[in-house]
Amino acid sequence: MGFAAEQIERTGADWQRMIEHPFLQRTRDGTIPFETFATWMRQDYLYADGAVPFISVLIAKAPEQHRAMLTGVLSMLQKELELFRERAAAAGVDFDDLTPTFVTHAYIQFLLATAYRESYACGFTVLYATEKAYHDSWREVLCGIDRASPWFPFVENWGGVAFAAYVAHLEEELDELASDAGAAERARMAELFDLTVRYELAFWDMAWSGTARSGPSAGSQDAGQPADYT
Amino acid sequence: MGFAAEQIERTGADWQRMIEHPFLQRTRDGTIPFETFATWMRQDYLYADGAVPFISVLIAKAPEQHRAMLTGVLSMLQKELELFRERAAAAGVDFDDLTPTFVTHAYIQFLLATAYRESYACGFTVLYATEKAYHDSWREVLCGIDRASPWFPFVENWGGVAFAAYVAHLEEELDELASDAGAAERARMAELFDLTVRYELAFWDMAWSGTARSGPSAGSQDAGQPADYT
Amino acid sequence: MGFAAEQIERTGADWQRMIEHPFLQRTRDGTIPFETFATWMRQDYLYADGAVPFISVLIAKAPEQHRAMLTGVLSMLQKELELFRERAAAAGVDFDDLTPTFVTHAYIQFLLATAYRESYACGFTVLYATEKAYHDSWREVLCGIDRASPWFPFVENWGGVAFAAYVAHLEEELDELASDAGAAERARMAELFDLTVRYELAFWDMAWSGTARSGPSAGSQDAGQPADYT
Amino acid sequence: MGFAAEQIERTGADWQRMIEHPFLQRTRDGTIPFETFATWMRQDYLYADGAVPFISVLIAKAPEQHRAMLTGVLSMLQKELELFRERAAAAGVDFDDLTPTFVTHAYIQFLLATAYRESYACGFTVLYATEKAYHDSWREVLCGIDRASPWFPFVENWGGVAFAAYVAHLEEELDELASDAGAAERARMAELFDLTVRYELAFWDMAWSGTARSGPSAGSQDAGQPADYT
Repeated sequence: MGFAAEQIERTGADWQRMIEHPFLQRTRDGTIPFETFATWMRQDYLYADGAVPFISVLIAKAPEQHRAMLTGVLSMLQKELELFRERAAAAGVDFDDLTPTFVTHAYIQFLLATAYRESYACGFTVLYATEKAYHDSWREVLCGIDRASPWFPFVENWGGVAFAAYVAHLEEELDELASDAGAAERARMAELFDLTVRYELAFWDMAWSGTARSGPSAGSQDAGQPADYT
Repeated sequence: MGFAAEQIERTGADWQRMIEHPFLQRTRDGTIPFETFATWMRQDYLYADGAVPFISVLIAKAPEQHRAMLTGVLSMLQKELELFRERAAAAGVDFDDLTPTFVTHAYIQFLLATAYRESYACGFTVLYATEKAYHDSWREVLCGIDRASPWFPFVENWGGVAFAAYVAHLEEELDELASDAGAAERARMAELFDLTVRYELAFWDMAWSGTARSGPSAGSQDAGQPADYT
Repeated sequence: MGFAAEQIERTGADWQRMIEHPFLQRTRDGTIPFETFATWMRQDYLYADGAVPFISVLIAKAPEQHRAMLTGVLSMLQKELELFRERAAAAGVDFDDLTPTFVTHAYIQFLLATAYRESYACGFTVLYATEKAYHDSWREVLCGIDRASPWFPFVENWGGVAFAAYVAHLEEELDELASDAGAAERARMAELFDLTVRYELAFWDMAWSGTARSGPSAGSQDAGQPADYT
Repeated sequence: MGFAAEQIERTGADWQRMIEHPFLQRTRDGTIPFETFATWMRQDYLYADGAVPFISVLIAKAPEQHRAMLTGVLSMLQKELELFRERAAAAGVDFDDLTPTFVTHAYIQFLLATAYRESYACGFTVLYATEKAYHDSWREVLCGIDRASPWFPFVENWGGVAFAAYVAHLEEELDELASDAGAAERARMAELFDLTVRYELAFWDMAWSGTARSGPSAGSQDAGQPADYT
């Protein structure tokens, strides 16, 4: 079994909880409240925007043969940002004054700090984990959603075959990086994979619980029970 | 009014909520549950450990005249880490297998990403905000806590006169950096000040709500209502 | 006068020496030895390759409105690298086992260190300086070179109108960044402009003196009189 | 044989040329011209100053058990900077308006870019190479120099037993990092070792040839034959 497959197996319970998240199931069934999906759209738009510097810093550390692919990811992100704006306009989701929730902001900081501070293989692990998580999550939605749904273009974007091929390519590359890495680096790669899954889960939880809808006055007294990393 | 004072005035309601946080009040009154304080100790130990790379990356960007001070901050962090270990041993707080909560991890990522990516004045703003927040918070505790409390050494460390002088020095330097900065950089500095206050509040909320005590199986389904950044 | 124009005026003597460099004059007149031009081709190919991480790290710090332009620079660099390979094949320049000379390696390190450590406006200043230097240098060659020269595609690439428009755009943006910057940052921008001119000059000197042709056994005993930065 | 010893063996000819450099032999014999040594002092002072951000960025990536040692290196650099200022005052070396030569500037950029972009083990390799080179170089001088020489404190600082013990410690740690590293990382470590030796050689050549004494008007037309990296 390759390194990538090992990670998904090891984080099995969390991975399962992620792809069966109520946000995804309700989106698939067409019963997701409009404002809940809108919250996710706004936050994921900000996340995709924050992924641009993440990928850029990765490119600077990338081996020659990964550069073209990662530059392609930058273009893909631009297209995703356009898709968000287009869907927001089409479905009437207010995209003025977007502000990140705590979880969105934190997730972006995690991406940035990883790209700057960790080795390339470590940063690439986080990239793989985020893309694989999105593909597996949205593929669950793709199996069942009404194609007339206004959210279908998102579902197809990440759940479809083109994205599947991209994720499969990332998987091969990750497996190769892992087999080239020493034991300490490989252990750190696994740790970063786990952390990414936690951030992914927190992101779905945030979107589902609709935190972002609480007004500015709410502040962080609603912070409640943030996830434990133990 | 200097830039530093302006920030504290502008974020007044949040700043007030922070320094009057139930965690602090109950610590002052001696009614904080042992395990709640222990949670904070474990998480703040990890935070101080995570502040070392933050300060290091700042030193690399620092003007000549700030280097000695920041190198002193590195030493200060080592002493704080020792204080934590000493108090943990003295009071019987279990320091084995420390793992960061979501908020602790996120806060450290915010420090790192800021130090790497933002200008020196921006990174310094975050340093000031964290230190000023800690001083003001613990000073509230210092006015009333029983000196025989096992937690008194922490209270004195951040609430006392030596730390006050250090924070006053940071304030002067921040004011100077802000007056040297252009309008765009100064606006970004203010934004980062606000973000730091939000992370500080989330940290107290996390410690108070005792999230960290929930076991590994709890995962992030407890994530509840993370703070909104609007 | 804008900031960009001020820099070129202030470094006037060096700027002039750069655009009147014998390497350029002999290229224009068609009397440049084949191997001298080949040396430059190999070293500039490595330089363009090294500029990819420089631009990438800049993107991570760039304001929203600069991202598309800088991503375009990444594509432009890919096209330049292809032009080098195509010309090398066409003219019979050996591109196997390319190794950077001291100056090429140093120049790339300067780009990287600047992008990582300095503010965005500072990094952008270096980008502008390199591109403006190349445009002005090759424009001198364009006025006189035989269009049948095998080197003409390079001359047209950097000396032509498309590149002129790009450099003019960089100039406007630099002027705006400089007017937004505080006095200390603007002074640092000027310092980095000067340093870039020195590296450009050293690069032409290296190509012209043909250092790169000396074999591996030569080592650095040939280092002679490297430029003073005073 | 450990990784460190392998590197020194592989770069044997260059390493030998370095430790037998005329600058060192003439310093040992007491026949070095005052102004030549003064040039080295000014440039090495700037180098030590530039090493502070290098070490700082390394600390941010360092494993827990290396932090105290590297923080110690920061203190050591402060003491070296004081030694330079003290010796300059004692011997009458003008330390006003210090400006780096091309080689000094380039070497510092190499340190910075490596610390930011490469893995920790790679950055540590460069640290080891610089310190080992200095120890071996000055130990050659120590065997023969008149203890009454005004330059003796430098010779003893890097050639003496305390520094020897520090370098021996770095060697052990480097060997361990290398044995933990994967093949690709280890190859990159070797490459960076070689590059460091080239920069060291260029530094001695620069000091010996007295480039730094040439006035600002000299510019880079003196650049002559910079070293080839082939």
